Amino acid sequence: MHDTMSKEKMKGISVKKSEDFSQWYTELVQKAELADMRYNIKGLVPYRAWASVTIKRMYDKYEKLLEKKGHLPLIMPTLIPERNFLLEADHVEGFSPQVFWVTHGGEKKLEEKLALRPTSETALYQMYSLWIRSYNDLPFKRYVSGQVFRYEGGDTRAFFRAREFHWIESHDVFATEEEARQQVVEDMEITYEMLQDEFAIPIIFFQRPEWDKFAGAVHTYAADALMDSGRVLQLPSTHLLGQNFSKPFNVTFIDTDNEEKFGYITCYGPAISRIYGAMIALLGDDQGLVLPWDLSPTQIVIIPIYRADSKEMVLEKAKELFETIEGYLPDAYIKLDDRDYVSPGEKFNEWELKGIPLRIEIGPKDIENKQVVCVNRISGEKLRIKSEELEKFIKEYSTKFTKQLKEKYAVQFETQLVSAETIDEVKKAIGNNKIACTGFCSIDFEGEACAEVVEKEVKAYVRGKRVDPETRKFEKCLVCGKPAQETVYIARSY
Amino acid sequence: MHDTMSKEKMKGISVKKSEDFSQWYTELVQKAELADMRYNIKGLVPYRAWASVTIKRMYDKYEKLLEKKGHLPLIMPTLIPERNFLLEADHVEGFSPQVFWVTHGGEKKLEEKLALRPTSETALYQMYSLWIRSYNDLPFKRYVSGQVFRYEGGDTRAFFRAREFHWIESHDVFATEEEARQQVVEDMEITYEMLQDEFAIPIIFFQRPEWDKFAGAVHTYAADALMDSGRVLQLPSTHLLGQNFSKPFNVTFIDTDNEEKFGYITCYGPAISRIYGAMIALLGDDQGLVLPWDLSPTQIVIIPIYRADSKEMVLEKAKELFETIEGYLPDAYIKLDDRDYVSPGEKFNEWELKGIPLRIEIGPKDIENKQVVCVNRISGEKLRIKSEELEKFIKEYSTKFTKQLKEKYAVQFETQLVSAETIDEVKKAIGNNKIACTGFCSIDFEGEACAEVVEKEVKAYVRGKRVDPETRKFEKCLVCGKPAQETVYIARSY
Repeated sequence: MHDTMSKEKMKGISVKKSEDFSQWYTELVQKAELADMRYNIKGLVPYRAWASVTIKRMYDKYEKLLEKKGHLPLIMPTLIPERNFLLEADHVEGFSPQVFWVTHGGEKKLEEKLALRPTSETALYQMYSLWIRSYNDLPFKRYVSGQVFRYEGGDTRAFFRAREFHWIESHDVFATEEEARQQVVEDMEITYEMLQDEFAIPIIFFQRPEWDKFAGAVHTYAADALMDSGRVLQLPSTHLLGQNFSKPFNVTFIDTDNEEKFGYITCYGPAISRIYGAMIALLGDDQGLVLPWDLSPTQIVIIPIYRADSKEMVLEKAKELFETIEGYLPDAYIKLDDRDYVSPGEKFNEWELKGIPLRIEIGPKDIENKQVVCVNRISGEKLRIKSEELEKFIKEYSTKFTKQLKEKYAVQFETQLVSAETIDEVKKAIGNNKIACTGFCSIDFEGEACAEVVEKEVKAYVRGKRVDPETRKFEKCLVCGKPAQETVYIARSY
Repeated sequence: MHDTMSKEKMKGISVKKSEDFSQWYTELVQKAELADMRYNIKGLVPYRAWASVTIKRMYDKYEKLLEKKGHLPLIMPTLIPERNFLLEADHVEGFSPQVFWVTHGGEKKLEEKLALRPTSETALYQMYSLWIRSYNDLPFKRYVSGQVFRYEGGDTRAFFRAREFHWIESHDVFATEEEARQQVVEDMEITYEMLQDEFAIPIIFFQRPEWDKFAGAVHTYAADALMDSGRVLQLPSTHLLGQNFSKPFNVTFIDTDNEEKFGYITCYGPAISRIYGAMIALLGDDQGLVLPWDLSPTQIVIIPIYRADSKEMVLEKAKELFETIEGYLPDAYIKLDDRDYVSPGEKFNEWELKGIPLRIEIGPKDIENKQVVCVNRISGEKLRIKSEELEKFIKEYSTKFTKQLKEKYAVQFETQLVSAETIDEVKKAIGNNKIACTGFCSIDFEGEACAEVVEKEVKAYVRGKRVDPETRKFEKCLVCGKPAQETVYIARSY
């Protein structure tokens, strides 16, 4: 499950993650063969097999959970006619500058420009208007998996920020605002279950300030992942759209009282490719990628170590070992790396770079001692495991690996938050690669001027107020000194 | 797993399939809530939940088999720069008229037009050129799942023919032509396994005539499904590209002799959404959709039948039955349809329309007699099954249903082929909704003139020569009378 690497590429990442994150990330993506930045359209990036396998598994996990929560899939057109965009004023203002437009079919100019979907509200809701008739159809919960396109300026980075990215968007309609609000809560629960438990990425959910909402939303709730660089990365966000779209798109239903009413809509958008980027960035180390157990394309690699005179015997035993372990973990992907044109040391480096959770080495001495050497990708710890203990060891290892990864970064996360009461204290925290927690006058539009001061002075952003219960309280807004209505978090972001 | 239907929509399909196939298909697609033709771009069609669930399962089955045969997934950009198209002359000629072009990002005109991929050769092979270095990297087998776009004129029909459709394309590189030819054979085997065994669609593989090849291919081998209307529908095709693309895109490798050589490429493109259309069209009947067991979103529906005085008791027993059957078939999707605002008769119609393989009815009398009524979606046969026989019955039913479907149409298939020696005989066969088998001078370019005569006189097409051993032999070409080098098949097509 890999493409052969030339010796030159095998040298590993040339910088430490803590010293030059940007270079480290770029080299990791290239050398672990995750993506290739050399495609000849700026911001569009082919994902190679090692990344694609993981991303497909992430989709699968996410879709299964959404279905468990009552969502059904839809497959929607990628193109949206221009007229649909014009129906919701904030939405058109927010997205128009980012739209790729299709203007021609063959040589022929199209009668109407078609947008490559930057998000699917304006494609879906005209159909919802036709599909939803009565309260019996509600709640109406659907999701679309696919790619979206945003013509963004500035730097692009594989998986993190690109002009085409891969996500799921769920769009749900309810009879009442209360149910819609409950859905937003459920979306956040889904996010915690996926990101924290399955993908080992610690997050905090923020209600975004008014000036930083999704274009057309009543409220936006977004998960920020705290990266070890001290920056945050916005991950899935869920939006209470209320009736902002149901009115222009005429999404109505006949209620129990026989009245026609507008539905309340929510939408939720986990960007799978971006979450994958967050996993690379947060979980990776100086040796390369580290992935949760289920998500690594291969979970266990067996590396036979031999010289010419022991080759045949070691390869035979390695093959037996491979079959034995397949018996222990029938659902796992196990690789026996018996390539004879690559040295064991190069194999160690290659599979560390690619983040395989468990490496098993077997050589003549191990065979003699009825043992194998097991190397943990997170800690680097080497253990000699006797044959009779191997089944128990491997089964435990497979269930504990992702938990071990999750705990490592959950700890780090807590140490990154710093309370601050003044702009200077916030500056200092940000300078130390921390995230500042502080008092703020308001996250309604009246607070926007203070947020602009923060942005200018600190080069960091007000991320909003925490959704989970806030224990830190402040008296004053750090900028204007008015009574603090909110505790907010300030961070640099990717 | 359904949207409520209004009474009006519940009336079922108004025409018989054999009388007006086109109207039957259109109504089935709409009334079973498979797709919606009202999206406001011609030829782009939202797939509703009932179709999307099945299509996702078809993708899953297909991808698993491709992976088993050594393919790995890639996720590729949807956009391709214009300059890539210009590299392979036949390809540009074949596809340019069908390309949707992106010309603007926001308000800004792009420096270069970007194509919405009509197929991915010209995106992939520039990357293959970078990724493949030596014979150790070969064979290099990858697949891309996603949608492609073709600005085609003429009628569009949901799933069958659309301007955006959903497929998988695999692209494989080999060191030798012989291995590439072997891959083409493997692609055909994959097609038979999927289409015939899993999707119950009988097919024949044809080597297409020179004038009907994929733009840029050395040879094209395409599966034609024989629909019961007597027309054929082209389903997956596999193409020997040889070195036609590896030369302009510089896909080379260092061989064992240390020489740099051009790879031999094959590509294979199962259009999942089209195969789904073929399932609707071929397997469906006057009552609606019929789907293979695994592919129906719900395999079993339980319908409780009660009056006011027996409601509570029947619903309780129906719930018990639901749980019992879930225990028998833990992987199946089972639905208890306990909606009290829809009559049992309407429920029968609705789930027949949607093609659920097994309907189980339970009423007071059945409860008294310790039995249930089981209704087979293919035959309509009603069986009373005693409680103690239910487990055996259901387990057998689940394994035999798809086979039953497959056998039904495999028989029909054989009766559709007719041998013909003259244009008149071919005309007659086609007029009787058959497929004609006849002698033909050549499927190289020298036969093109004869094929044009057939097209003009019969309004049908030379599909090519069978790939599996041909038992029918003819002496002369039905048009020019020269010695027949080939036995070919002539059919109308969708």
